[in-house]
Amino acid sequence: MTQTPRFAKRMDGITGSAIRELFKITARPGVISFGGGNPSPAALPDEIVADISRELVAGNGKVLLQYGMTEGLPALRESLVPYIEKEFGVKTTADQILPVTGSTQAFNLLMDAYTDPGDVILTEDPTFLGATQAMALHQLKIVPVECDDEGLKTDALEEAILKYHPRMLYTIPTFQNPTGVTMPLERRKKIAELAEKYDLLVAEDDPYRSLRYTGESLPTIKSFDKSGKVVLMGSFSKVISPGLRVAFMVCEPVLLRKCTICKQSDDLHTANLNQAIVDAYLRRDLLTPHIENISKNYRAQMEEMLSCLKNVRGIEHYTKPEGGLFIFCYLKEGVNATDMLMKAVEKGVAYVPGTYFYPNGGHENTLRLNFSNSDIPTIRRGMALLDECLK
Amino acid sequence: MTQTPRFAKRMDGITGSAIRELFKITARPGVISFGGGNPSPAALPDEIVADISRELVAGNGKVLLQYGMTEGLPALRESLVPYIEKEFGVKTTADQILPVTGSTQAFNLLMDAYTDPGDVILTEDPTFLGATQAMALHQLKIVPVECDDEGLKTDALEEAILKYHPRMLYTIPTFQNPTGVTMPLERRKKIAELAEKYDLLVAEDDPYRSLRYTGESLPTIKSFDKSGKVVLMGSFSKVISPGLRVAFMVCEPVLLRKCTICKQSDDLHTANLNQAIVDAYLRRDLLTPHIENISKNYRAQMEEMLSCLKNVRGIEHYTKPEGGLFIFCYLKEGVNATDMLMKAVEKGVAYVPGTYFYPNGGHENTLRLNFSNSDIPTIRRGMALLDECLK
Repeated sequence: MTQTPRFAKRMDGITGSAIRELFKITARPGVISFGGGNPSPAALPDEIVADISRELVAGNGKVLLQYGMTEGLPALRESLVPYIEKEFGVKTTADQILPVTGSTQAFNLLMDAYTDPGDVILTEDPTFLGATQAMALHQLKIVPVECDDEGLKTDALEEAILKYHPRMLYTIPTFQNPTGVTMPLERRKKIAELAEKYDLLVAEDDPYRSLRYTGESLPTIKSFDKSGKVVLMGSFSKVISPGLRVAFMVCEPVLLRKCTICKQSDDLHTANLNQAIVDAYLRRDLLTPHIENISKNYRAQMEEMLSCLKNVRGIEHYTKPEGGLFIFCYLKEGVNATDMLMKAVEKGVAYVPGTYFYPNGGHENTLRLNFSNSDIPTIRRGMALLDECLK
Repeated sequence: MTQTPRFAKRMDGITGSAIRELFKITARPGVISFGGGNPSPAALPDEIVADISRELVAGNGKVLLQYGMTEGLPALRESLVPYIEKEFGVKTTADQILPVTGSTQAFNLLMDAYTDPGDVILTEDPTFLGATQAMALHQLKIVPVECDDEGLKTDALEEAILKYHPRMLYTIPTFQNPTGVTMPLERRKKIAELAEKYDLLVAEDDPYRSLRYTGESLPTIKSFDKSGKVVLMGSFSKVISPGLRVAFMVCEPVLLRKCTICKQSDDLHTANLNQAIVDAYLRRDLLTPHIENISKNYRAQMEEMLSCLKNVRGIEHYTKPEGGLFIFCYLKEGVNATDMLMKAVEKGVAYVPGTYFYPNGGHENTLRLNFSNSDIPTIRRGMALLDECLK
């Protein structure tokens, strides 16, 4: 265009993910990356998906290649019912489930259907950057709520509810991104109670829960939801493949219908083949052994990184996750992890500065480490380099 | 939820596609359907896609199953460059192309990035219902512009521009949905001129252009665009498979970057495997012979339906498309095609009443016929039933 055009107001101040830009700088050959949140290549079941894809398209291609329903592939909606009960502890029915194109889409649809510009949304502090960008594009007012090593502080949450009259809460209760921490049972119950008491919609984003390496599985917030105020979002990105873009949302039919209408205008429907691949994983009991298999490696990688962290000078505190993909670290007050990053990359190791995950910025002394995408020797080398850099 | 909750203002008056609801009523066993816009099952290349899928995932699964870039699979963006030049007459570069999850998404991203609630958008009258629903969800003011059997009347368009100061025009210039008509060369040129003159963004939706059965191919509006005011949207839904959900948009990099940011929050990226299947179709020259092949059948079906239409009593006028999937019919003034539909279904044939495609309603005497999804004997029988019903 000859002159810089005017864009939609919702684009004001939106520049795209700073982290993605950062990756372009830090992605130098030979640099060990503890940035990113990718599954390990070893965890991606290419051989099985190759065979299943052919089988599904050869056997049912006239259906899978045709237009599908916005509501999702009927077979997948059915197979999600027992899966969601077993894995998320939520008794549901097919008409409360919407397969979506990644849980990013689920959250987007929820904001489309339920929020107006100017509405307040509460989040953990820090929280997932992709979610806050989506909130900003919906012109919501983001109010981060204080967290500790057990996640969202429910007393701070109630205060924020009373003060800001929020429309929604976005939370990642299990192996949170970026901190890796898990909210204990009582807090989960409490959030469901507060949601009912204050008519607050809770978006419970739970993509990591199956990647538990130690400790006992905890019920979802949704499992305590008596008044239909909790929307559960689950994903197959971390347990089968992110490249397939299949996730789901579970909520009351009235709200789900509104989200479905928004999805119709968004992408009409999630690609059928991709839904059918996930359906095959569920129906053939391929998912549980696959998760057990990848969890073995992830557990060893997490334990190795936690063990190395004891000896990294300059890190004052770090979270001790029981699963997921991330560990969050706190440097000395006054040390700037963003400033340190270029030095680290020169030494040969990269991470994500934690400040990006705080909706209001600050917390410059924090950083996020990913352990899923590096094998054990690489973790050892990378952590030694980090120690050299931060000491 | 215990009481009916309040939803987002953008949901006011939005009820989902009336046509989809209609299909549920008309989808009785034994009823011949000229509703819908599905490709013929015979046109869906299940065997080839089955083999390609396996080959792609077996060969490159660690990349295809991993997270991809919002900007699209690099290989597909590259292979789209020569395809778009050859098929759409637009010289472009990879950085002006965004692969998307169906052209529905492309249009949605464009409105996200470029429009604010209350902005005016011009459309053909009638136009594609999915597009008007997406406009309504963006809280745009829809102003339909008069059309004739050569599509959008450019004098009426200029009047509407001067009167309403629109932000955007949405047009389907080739084998339009629902009318099947194609805009001649001079009107295409004129629209590109008006876009530049009045700083109007043109969303050119061109999913049917490769399905030409007679006559000469016409240049896209985009090919006359000197000032970056035209956004071209193309799709593989009608020429490979709608169930794969792969399409693309082409526009100036500054605007494309904004759309890419919106896509990041929308679904992060289009599924890699689906993009790679389309890429394989392009790189292996599978698309051209496939289109030639399906066009043979579609041509015969269209000719048969046009021939039958000469003898359907009660239809006063109908369009004579040179391609695409649809023919549009006008009954006598005062005859109501919606009222007639139940009678037609009882006789054993279904269509879509045209009124749904008019943003302001009315035009009750119109109906849309699809010929791609019925073979020739079925078309003959269905048209005879229609004659019985409308005579």
